[in-house]
Amino acid sequence: MAGALEPTTTARAGQVVRLPPGSRDVLPDEARELRAIKDALRTTFEDQGYGEVITPTLEYTDVLARGVLGDALPSYRLVDDHGAWLELRSDATVPLARVAATRFHGHDGPLRFWYSQTVYRPVPQLQGRSREISQTGVELFGVEGAEGDREILGVVAQSLAAIGLTEARLLVGDARLSETILRGAGVDDDTVAAAHGALQRGEFVAIEQLLGEAGLALDEVDRVVGLLRTRGDVSLLAAHADELGEPGAELRATIDGLAPADQALVIVDLGLVRGLDYYSGLVFEVVHPALGEPLGGGGRYDDLVGRFGDDRPAVGFALAVDWVHRAQAFGGAA
Amino acid sequence: MAGALEPTTTARAGQVVRLPPGSRDVLPDEARELRAIKDALRTTFEDQGYGEVITPTLEYTDVLARGVLGDALPSYRLVDDHGAWLELRSDATVPLARVAATRFHGHDGPLRFWYSQTVYRPVPQLQGRSREISQTGVELFGVEGAEGDREILGVVAQSLAAIGLTEARLLVGDARLSETILRGAGVDDDTVAAAHGALQRGEFVAIEQLLGEAGLALDEVDRVVGLLRTRGDVSLLAAHADELGEPGAELRATIDGLAPADQALVIVDLGLVRGLDYYSGLVFEVVHPALGEPLGGGGRYDDLVGRFGDDRPAVGFALAVDWVHRAQAFGGAA
Repeated sequence: MAGALEPTTTARAGQVVRLPPGSRDVLPDEARELRAIKDALRTTFEDQGYGEVITPTLEYTDVLARGVLGDALPSYRLVDDHGAWLELRSDATVPLARVAATRFHGHDGPLRFWYSQTVYRPVPQLQGRSREISQTGVELFGVEGAEGDREILGVVAQSLAAIGLTEARLLVGDARLSETILRGAGVDDDTVAAAHGALQRGEFVAIEQLLGEAGLALDEVDRVVGLLRTRGDVSLLAAHADELGEPGAELRATIDGLAPADQALVIVDLGLVRGLDYYSGLVFEVVHPALGEPLGGGGRYDDLVGRFGDDRPAVGFALAVDWVHRAQAFGGAA
Repeated sequence: MAGALEPTTTARAGQVVRLPPGSRDVLPDEARELRAIKDALRTTFEDQGYGEVITPTLEYTDVLARGVLGDALPSYRLVDDHGAWLELRSDATVPLARVAATRFHGHDGPLRFWYSQTVYRPVPQLQGRSREISQTGVELFGVEGAEGDREILGVVAQSLAAIGLTEARLLVGDARLSETILRGAGVDDDTVAAAHGALQRGEFVAIEQLLGEAGLALDEVDRVVGLLRTRGDVSLLAAHADELGEPGAELRATIDGLAPADQALVIVDLGLVRGLDYYSGLVFEVVHPALGEPLGGGGRYDDLVGRFGDDRPAVGFALAVDWVHRAQAFGGAA
């Protein structure tokens, strides 16, 4: 370590004083624009009756692990001076579910929270991913089904207007749709689970193979994979009512009940799944033509809060502030 | 770990879903008040021409270690997936010095930065200390001596007015004063170093003992320790001009040049030292009658930026947002 304390020559400082890959300094011009985004979102959320919650960066690993059904997100872990495992939060929703369950234990009415917090994710080298992601979002606890879903989609629409992203759209689906489609085709549980995993990774060729191995005829494989890749307006849900079952009917009712301006942002995506396993109903992603990946998203997670000891329905979303900023820079900002 | 994933009964949730000691959730009513403090400070800083800088939470340990002369602050460290040591920042000034040296390498004019960042410090159990400290502050690079010092003291005064802490005062000293006093009494280098350490810990009895062992007569020990404990108005610096040497004269010039309203906040403290070893001149603490410890502080650190490869003078300060909030609640808020 002694060597590291030696001052560098000024000429080499740029190389030697480095930051971990995937992290960066934000200088004043950009910081001002990021603040403007966060301020606009905060005003939107506060105007809708949401109140800010701030949770610690470091929490016990075994507490955060309760929020995870399948594999945990990759995370930074360390042992504190008392031998306990701590983790830098890799997600903002799980800590807020914890707050709802423990600090508002037994509370009857709806809870409306917003946050602006950084989440931390280890990054593979050379992939251009961010280690520290500034997320701003809301969580609505205690309002079930279409009523809560519509409120959140409305807040998303107002947020996009507030930050001037007129070209952004919402890809909207339901976490149960892909399973309904697969089960409707008569495939077994193992194939459903494997195909769901492949869908999360966007591996449609792998899904075709799995369905073929499960005994589906070629045209039936094409039909199922075609459905999972289908995007379009809300009329899709009526056209495929049989294959989409109850989740399709609920999603249709939710979208039909949106204000016309909000509905105009919606693109139905029958195969939409999100990386996190806690979603139980509505799922959506915010997309923008200037970006190759979503700038945010969210959904319903009715089974998460109960893991912290106080069952209640929940729905929410978050935007990645750096991605919003990039979308604004590429056009579409008012 | 499997056991930790079992849901608790609702009745026990309060005990089982716990947070690490020294950290907490902030709920909406308090979050709104903390936001108001941060907004008022941000407006004050921006109005004075300071621009926000955001640095990563996680940096390489060997980079941050350059900013530390003596013992590093206790910190959280972890090994990333490439085998490199990372550290959660335990201080906000060292990363901003790094930014000034590397991102504004060779830049001639003054740099005015502000930040609102959390710093992380491991805490001994049962001491009521905070693990995660929200700090808001400024750093002024490239303005030497009294001119820079007065600017920063002026920003502190405006900040206190903006957050309504009319009862707050500034304890002001110089990092070199205690050494000047001790050397003036003719004690050896080892005793100076040991007494300085005892002063940082507030152990005046230990200083008396050290000076006695160094051969000082009892009345001389009393005189030296008395000086180190002396607080009062700026006239102290003239009254003790001989013992305080050049640092005393510089501090007097700095305070004499302050606007009268700013000067009225100043209490000179001849023995003031700060916990961090990088201070090289002016040091100060913001104190409030409702609080047992300072709610912020700062000083000049002319030798820090050069460690990152681009030498320049620097002075700054930070306030702990939670302490400001507590002081407001106890009275003194406008």
